[in-house]
Amino acid sequence: MSGDNQIRFGLLTCTNIVRKLSRAINLSPNATISAIATTSSIEEAKSFTKSNNFPPNTKIHSSYESLLEDPDVDAVYFPIPTRLHLEWATRAARKGKHILLDKPVALTVSEFDQIVEACEVNGVQFMDGTQWMHNPRTYKIKEFVNDLESFGQIKSVHCCFSFAANDDFLKHDIRVKPGLDGLGALGDAGWYTIQAILLANDFKLPKTVTALPGCVLNDAGIVLSCGALFDWEEGISATIYCSFLANLTMEITAIGTKGTLRVHDFVIPYRETETAFTTSGRGCVSEHKVMTELPQEACMVIEFARLVGEIKNRGAKPDGFWLSISRKTQLIVDAVKESIDNNLEPVFLSGR
Amino acid sequence: MSGDNQIRFGLLTCTNIVRKLSRAINLSPNATISAIATTSSIEEAKSFTKSNNFPPNTKIHSSYESLLEDPDVDAVYFPIPTRLHLEWATRAARKGKHILLDKPVALTVSEFDQIVEACEVNGVQFMDGTQWMHNPRTYKIKEFVNDLESFGQIKSVHCCFSFAANDDFLKHDIRVKPGLDGLGALGDAGWYTIQAILLANDFKLPKTVTALPGCVLNDAGIVLSCGALFDWEEGISATIYCSFLANLTMEITAIGTKGTLRVHDFVIPYRETETAFTTSGRGCVSEHKVMTELPQEACMVIEFARLVGEIKNRGAKPDGFWLSISRKTQLIVDAVKESIDNNLEPVFLSGR
Repeated sequence: MSGDNQIRFGLLTCTNIVRKLSRAINLSPNATISAIATTSSIEEAKSFTKSNNFPPNTKIHSSYESLLEDPDVDAVYFPIPTRLHLEWATRAARKGKHILLDKPVALTVSEFDQIVEACEVNGVQFMDGTQWMHNPRTYKIKEFVNDLESFGQIKSVHCCFSFAANDDFLKHDIRVKPGLDGLGALGDAGWYTIQAILLANDFKLPKTVTALPGCVLNDAGIVLSCGALFDWEEGISATIYCSFLANLTMEITAIGTKGTLRVHDFVIPYRETETAFTTSGRGCVSEHKVMTELPQEACMVIEFARLVGEIKNRGAKPDGFWLSISRKTQLIVDAVKESIDNNLEPVFLSGR
Repeated sequence: MSGDNQIRFGLLTCTNIVRKLSRAINLSPNATISAIATTSSIEEAKSFTKSNNFPPNTKIHSSYESLLEDPDVDAVYFPIPTRLHLEWATRAARKGKHILLDKPVALTVSEFDQIVEACEVNGVQFMDGTQWMHNPRTYKIKEFVNDLESFGQIKSVHCCFSFAANDDFLKHDIRVKPGLDGLGALGDAGWYTIQAILLANDFKLPKTVTALPGCVLNDAGIVLSCGALFDWEEGISATIYCSFLANLTMEITAIGTKGTLRVHDFVIPYRETETAFTTSGRGCVSEHKVMTELPQEACMVIEFARLVGEIKNRGAKPDGFWLSISRKTQLIVDAVKESIDNNLEPVFLSGR
């Protein structure tokens, strides 16, 4: 794709996650970085753009507002605290900027619905920044669990994502602060596990969501560790465990009537370009390798930029698929939180 | 060990599980088969003993009573329906026979306590027939999850054992019949998963047990598939999934603060004499191989016969370790059943 057709990203903040995403954009043929906004020093931002190989002509804005006014920005990546999502995503949409928003997409689904409305009214593309969903392995996994011959009907999924945060994280990270990312481990690690159980169930919402006993909250009431149970029709269920307090584990076990899927590193693959998963069924166990030329975050950028390109260059309408996955995930995050807050009562999703 | 010191087994029934156990006894240097009892034809039993390499002088009894009277029988293996355990295990104990009893050990813990009492009064050894608990790999697994350096404090365990039973099993097997093994998949597949989560928690009973939504019962009310949640003190929890309705899966995922354990074939290892498990922690993943000379069922027989030998040859008292594990497991099976029967209410184990 020629440079002229590349989708031009504006990035907010000079943080590690932006470092990772800027590399992904650089690796993506249909995307480029055109601007960054920082609320700290311009000098620091200059040094950040240089050390991370941003294009030399990257504009540096001293405020988010200024970046949103930039006509050379097509799309904005928002790695900002969840509490700021509603304000900045709706502002960006009103400026016609396409939105790549980090998870959790909002503090509640009703907040998210305001973002959705702003995107629809202004015809902008939305995607949440869950990278593993775009890994070629994930498509292979989905193919397997949808295959009635090899996997059969789904029966049970268990998914966990945990990591042992250090003291500094547990005291200061935005993910443990009620004023910033109020959903804690549920909105962070839990988001991935919920998308995994949705993926395994062909994105069908469960009938009920029930938080499990054993949830750990910090003094400010933020979830540091929790589990939940999801229940579809009779005999189909899933459990998740998400935690900031346990060793790094990123596991999916999905069991169908005829096959079983196991993934050990679903969130961040052990190897960037050679991923694996295991299936078993009919008495044999198979290891599958999936080679990818690009890291999963670049696959995400390419897919997002492709959809934005359809709108920008071909007059297409925004694609609603990824937005619908984000909304379902947020709905379930909300329901787990509601169950935690209501003495672990089941929450019925029907009609939501 | 000389033949004279071998523990002499009496076996009940000519079934597949007895075929497997007779091979295990033949492989065990400290055990031998001295008798079998059948309630069907003597001719059939003769052919069964011959085709399974029983010692040529194996006595064939035409009733369980007769086998229990046999002075050449030290210990009895009971692969009979759970509903018959109380009667026959207590009768065997009263005859001074040591007891290797299949799981689930009873229909309820109060029934089991009568078996325990009969064993204690008569000074006989008790063990349940859960073979994987005696696999050398299991000891290595236990070593890992108890290691505060490598594994840290336990946080979460998920364990599943499922297999897709065929129509014949689902109609006729004793495990789906209320008059025979009334605990269904919970007493069968669930038993293994409960022992696994106990093992991972150093055999400490959970505080509460809660059955999960999504349980499947047959028309007679027998559990075909269910899940449960176990909750120790704050932030330590475990989930199980056991089912006759899903593809063969035998998975343990145990997560500590510093390490993670994964076992993919914990009930029946893919390979009889070369087993494996995976650990991760401190940024690396390790595959562990455990070589065993003998299959796990022979390891079980050897351990049981060793304990019986201590009593028979050295005047020791029965060892209570395995009995205590069986009782805890049965207590939890009962609690899951109680929770299922009580609209998934949590069951508190304190004082039980």
